[in-house]
Amino acid sequence: MKATVYRKEHFNSAHRLNNPLWTEEKNKEVFGKCNNQNFHGHNYELIVRVTGDIDQDTGYVIDMKILSDIIKVNVLDRFDHKNLNLDTEEFLNLNPTAENIAMVIWNILRQKIEVGYELKIFLYETERNYVEYPHA
Amino acid sequence: MKATVYRKEHFNSAHRLNNPLWTEEKNKEVFGKCNNQNFHGHNYELIVRVTGDIDQDTGYVIDMKILSDIIKVNVLDRFDHKNLNLDTEEFLNLNPTAENIAMVIWNILRQKIEVGYELKIFLYETERNYVEYPHA
Amino acid sequence: MKATVYRKEHFNSAHRLNNPLWTEEKNKEVFGKCNNQNFHGHNYELIVRVTGDIDQDTGYVIDMKILSDIIKVNVLDRFDHKNLNLDTEEFLNLNPTAENIAMVIWNILRQKIEVGYELKIFLYETERNYVEYPHA
Amino acid sequence: MKATVYRKEHFNSAHRLNNPLWTEEKNKEVFGKCNNQNFHGHNYELIVRVTGDIDQDTGYVIDMKILSDIIKVNVLDRFDHKNLNLDTEEFLNLNPTAENIAMVIWNILRQKIEVGYELKIFLYETERNYVEYPHA
Amino acid sequence: MKATVYRKEHFNSAHRLNNPLWTEEKNKEVFGKCNNQNFHGHNYELIVRVTGDIDQDTGYVIDMKILSDIIKVNVLDRFDHKNLNLDTEEFLNLNPTAENIAMVIWNILRQKIEVGYELKIFLYETERNYVEYPHA
Amino acid sequence: MKATVYRKEHFNSAHRLNNPLWTEEKNKEVFGKCNNQNFHGHNYELIVRVTGDIDQDTGYVIDMKILSDIIKVNVLDRFDHKNLNLDTEEFLNLNPTAENIAMVIWNILRQKIEVGYELKIFLYETERNYVEYPHA
Repeated sequence: MKATVYRKEHFNSAHRLNNPLWTEEKNKEVFGKCNNQNFHGHNYELIVRVTGDIDQDTGYVIDMKILSDIIKVNVLDRFDHKNLNLDTEEFLNLNPTAENIAMVIWNILRQKIEVGYELKIFLYETERNYVEYPHA
Repeated sequence: MKATVYRKEHFNSAHRLNNPLWTEEKNKEVFGKCNNQNFHGHNYELIVRVTGDIDQDTGYVIDMKILSDIIKVNVLDRFDHKNLNLDTEEFLNLNPTAENIAMVIWNILRQKIEVGYELKIFLYETERNYVEYPHA
Repeated sequence: MKATVYRKEHFNSAHRLNNPLWTEEKNKEVFGKCNNQNFHGHNYELIVRVTGDIDQDTGYVIDMKILSDIIKVNVLDRFDHKNLNLDTEEFLNLNPTAENIAMVIWNILRQKIEVGYELKIFLYETERNYVEYPHA
Repeated sequence: MKATVYRKEHFNSAHRLNNPLWTEEKNKEVFGKCNNQNFHGHNYELIVRVTGDIDQDTGYVIDMKILSDIIKVNVLDRFDHKNLNLDTEEFLNLNPTAENIAMVIWNILRQKIEVGYELKIFLYETERNYVEYPHA
Repeated sequence: MKATVYRKEHFNSAHRLNNPLWTEEKNKEVFGKCNNQNFHGHNYELIVRVTGDIDQDTGYVIDMKILSDIIKVNVLDRFDHKNLNLDTEEFLNLNPTAENIAMVIWNILRQKIEVGYELKIFLYETERNYVEYPHA
Repeated sequence: MKATVYRKEHFNSAHRLNNPLWTEEKNKEVFGKCNNQNFHGHNYELIVRVTGDIDQDTGYVIDMKILSDIIKVNVLDRFDHKNLNLDTEEFLNLNPTAENIAMVIWNILRQKIEVGYELKIFLYETERNYVEYPHA
């Protein structure tokens, strides 16, 4: 018997959208206010979705405390109260759009969650804009 | 690399559920309070889901400001603060249930969003009743 | 020992803002989209606040099932799935703004809730616009 | 034309996680605070998802009042304001984790909803922990 | 310069409403499903409101981490994942209604938060039923 | 007849908590992660509360479109997608805590909203931490 479980966490970060290969004008035109050179920020809501068998002994797909700890150590400690552009290796050469942040988080967690589980990331940049990786 | 993005918008409309081929009694029996001849209304929450490649230059699946503008011009300007039964062409001969409104919005947006993108509509009629089109 | 309790309910109505003493132009100028002659609508969220002594036998300020029934019979049955302008006596000669709807609901419930209780109404027209009556 | 509809309901229950084949120590180690022998409880949010054809006469996939009544009679009346471990047959020999509760609800509703409809259950134990059955 | 700050926490508990001086019939009549002898439970949302001067050196009314720790040690550790009727001293002889729980929490925190601060408790038993103590 | 109206808006900003008169160690000790020198950020939810007479001609305390425009021009255009510490005059010499941001917004709006109206600001830094100015 398989089921899917979801764990919601959050982190608060500063970021800026910018393509260093483009002119300043092109960056302003494409990224608008999100290109502000001194950064802006978000309360990111992160939902980690894990699919697997329901364990007969526990009734769990995965222990949510363990899942929460994996997220905390590998994602929140890395990105919470940080500047994604300046304080992290992951976005030194990658534009920290919601799409890319979700992809980076998936890549990080995929190494930490047993391969038998299917994994998906939902990331809310605001209540009105959010992303899913891998795609639906 | 593909990802899926979601954009949430809202509009406020009046509507009434009614099948003109049925008797008044049959309509009352099936649609209950929703058949009230003087209409009632809702704050509709609309979520537009778009799946596509993450653009290497922007880190975007689609520019959310552009997506939001497409929704505004083609959906909100058409349905917001309107009576769906009386003020719109789309529901002259179609019962404005949440299912049908979602289908109509999908048909409208499908013409406006490049064919390479997959498109899905979620529409909340209330916090407790909502629909997805095309089906899950 | 006094405490304050809150009960949240909702109703869905059509309405239109209009001042019959004004010209059509003036009404459009002041009420904009809300003046649409064929109505629009909302999911109204209603919060009824009651302050009183904590009863020593029950531990209740007021029985929430009784409070909920009072609201249902006197407010929801009157306004839910109705057109406020056409289907109700209360708004025949009163513009159904959120302020006025809250005042009308307070006047109705004030007759039905014992005078020893303090009463206040919060009414959400949308998630972003709401009112409190009597004033804070 | 197929669409998918969602109906949200809720119930409040007490429960305790425990595996009777394990020692008390093992249960405490695995289930932590959730093993508390005198129980704790939750406001469970239940979302029932139904996929099917949009009926040409009604514009409905399924009448939401009928769906809501089916959930009320078969799920809420059984589990609301109950102790899942002590008051229900379903969890006499099954650990009432969110995964198992969702599976039990799916099994109950699958008997009550016509076979032509696809059925899925989402169950929120808290705002941060929720499950989907069958799996995504 | 005074301001007011709010901190939201939550805990999950089982409880039962019952007046031991009453007959079983009277208890069932007054408390209905909440009287179930095997308990039910809730996700309680707790909001602690503190009013005081904005400190000129920090810009804080109170350090929210310190406030959160005070709530954790004195309230959550006492009530989270507990049976309020069986596992706590506070409700051995006090009916654990939302009103009484809020009063008990206020009495506990009033001892732990400096007297110069004004203190108020909001407690959500469900999304639709909540209380404020002391009264508004 | 007086009533109170609320308008909810939001803005996304980067900030850092720091007292320039203190040592680096003292700042780290007091402000913790919020002292990160490269900033972090938030989705700020702003609620502006206005109390006044219900106008007999409109049924409004204040036109919500006008109130929303005042907030947009004077607050959102100033703080949205900005770094509060680097991009604004208001926080050059003032620590951008939620308390101080709320006070600054109140001071700005107090100049723009007629003196006959009472004004209050609620500011959510996160879903769990928020402030009210002037104090409750």
